[in-house]
Amino acid sequence: MEFSSKLLERAVNEMSQLPGIGKRTALRLVLHMLRQPKEQTTMLSEALQAMRNEVKFCKSCHNISDHNLCEICASPNRNESIICVVEDIKDVMAIENTSSFKGLYHVLGGKISPMDGIGPHDLNIESLVNKVKEGSVKELIFALSSTMEGDTTNFYIFKQIQEYKIFTSTIARGISVGDELEYADEITLGRSIVNRIPFENSLKL
Amino acid sequence: MEFSSKLLERAVNEMSQLPGIGKRTALRLVLHMLRQPKEQTTMLSEALQAMRNEVKFCKSCHNISDHNLCEICASPNRNESIICVVEDIKDVMAIENTSSFKGLYHVLGGKISPMDGIGPHDLNIESLVNKVKEGSVKELIFALSSTMEGDTTNFYIFKQIQEYKIFTSTIARGISVGDELEYADEITLGRSIVNRIPFENSLKL
Repeated sequence: MEFSSKLLERAVNEMSQLPGIGKRTALRLVLHMLRQPKEQTTMLSEALQAMRNEVKFCKSCHNISDHNLCEICASPNRNESIICVVEDIKDVMAIENTSSFKGLYHVLGGKISPMDGIGPHDLNIESLVNKVKEGSVKELIFALSSTMEGDTTNFYIFKQIQEYKIFTSTIARGISVGDELEYADEITLGRSIVNRIPFENSLKL
Repeated sequence: MEFSSKLLERAVNEMSQLPGIGKRTALRLVLHMLRQPKEQTTMLSEALQAMRNEVKFCKSCHNISDHNLCEICASPNRNESIICVVEDIKDVMAIENTSSFKGLYHVLGGKISPMDGIGPHDLNIESLVNKVKEGSVKELIFALSSTMEGDTTNFYIFKQIQEYKIFTSTIARGISVGDELEYADEITLGRSIVNRIPFENSLKL
């Protein structure tokens, strides 16, 4: 792609560094900015820089936060004895949106994935084990993706904390609410039968 | 969507102002930036601001440029007597990539579209008519989209310059190179028969 302006070329090149944004999309976005008031681009630039330079990570759960301790960890209304282990902050937001969980979180920052060169020491596992060691945690809920990497990470953490005899659970795998049985994959359907729950329990939800 | 950080929320909100980027995509992009070195975000922000604040539009053809006159208009190797009328700068780039055109361009900045509230006076039509009036232009090639709006714009310009008796042409509509006839739409196929060219001419390309 040949550009008639170096400034345009530089903006498109920088934009296309972002994942899922190719040169053509970047050009479309940049030309859109040119049609908008200058202030909008200024506000976008400043917001991105402020976010990148000033955002903090909660020292307890590693969630993104404006303070040293995030709002969830600092809240007196949350149950500190239950910790939900998640991959990244998008998962925290997803679970928070359900309003079904009143404990704390622990953001690992990824999954163990030898293929991508991510080992246990690249993740926030040590601080999780330390929390368990301190003794105030009663339950750990593994809420990682149901993939090979997620299962490996669950198992690695389980091994590390096994000796402390706390209750560990994993989120239920089963048929999505509203889904038709005939379109469900066999493994999920099989698991949903093996892990069936008393009918009365399902009425409470 | 609830965010654990105001800085993150602001960045996501600004990002999602861009066309085709929703809140979820914006969050994915912003979280990607957080995983990359700070310099990358700084470079992106600076490139966008520099582009928005410093980019110029060629005073002759309205193409984006770093100077008052764009490289194409300033080049001594281009034929000044043929002007290709296009909708926006993406079309200039597309035609330049074909290396099939050695004349100059004129970027209208859109099409006449009453539905979107875009009239002739919102486009760079007056400066085009003035160029024709000056007398150095011999041919005008209409290279707008083959839509109702494109055809309306072509016709509006044609009416304005009719009295100056210059040659006007429109790019050929026909079957794409490599396409099978059976999948072509009827209008395009019909036009390609009506506007057939001598077989010998097609051998020269």
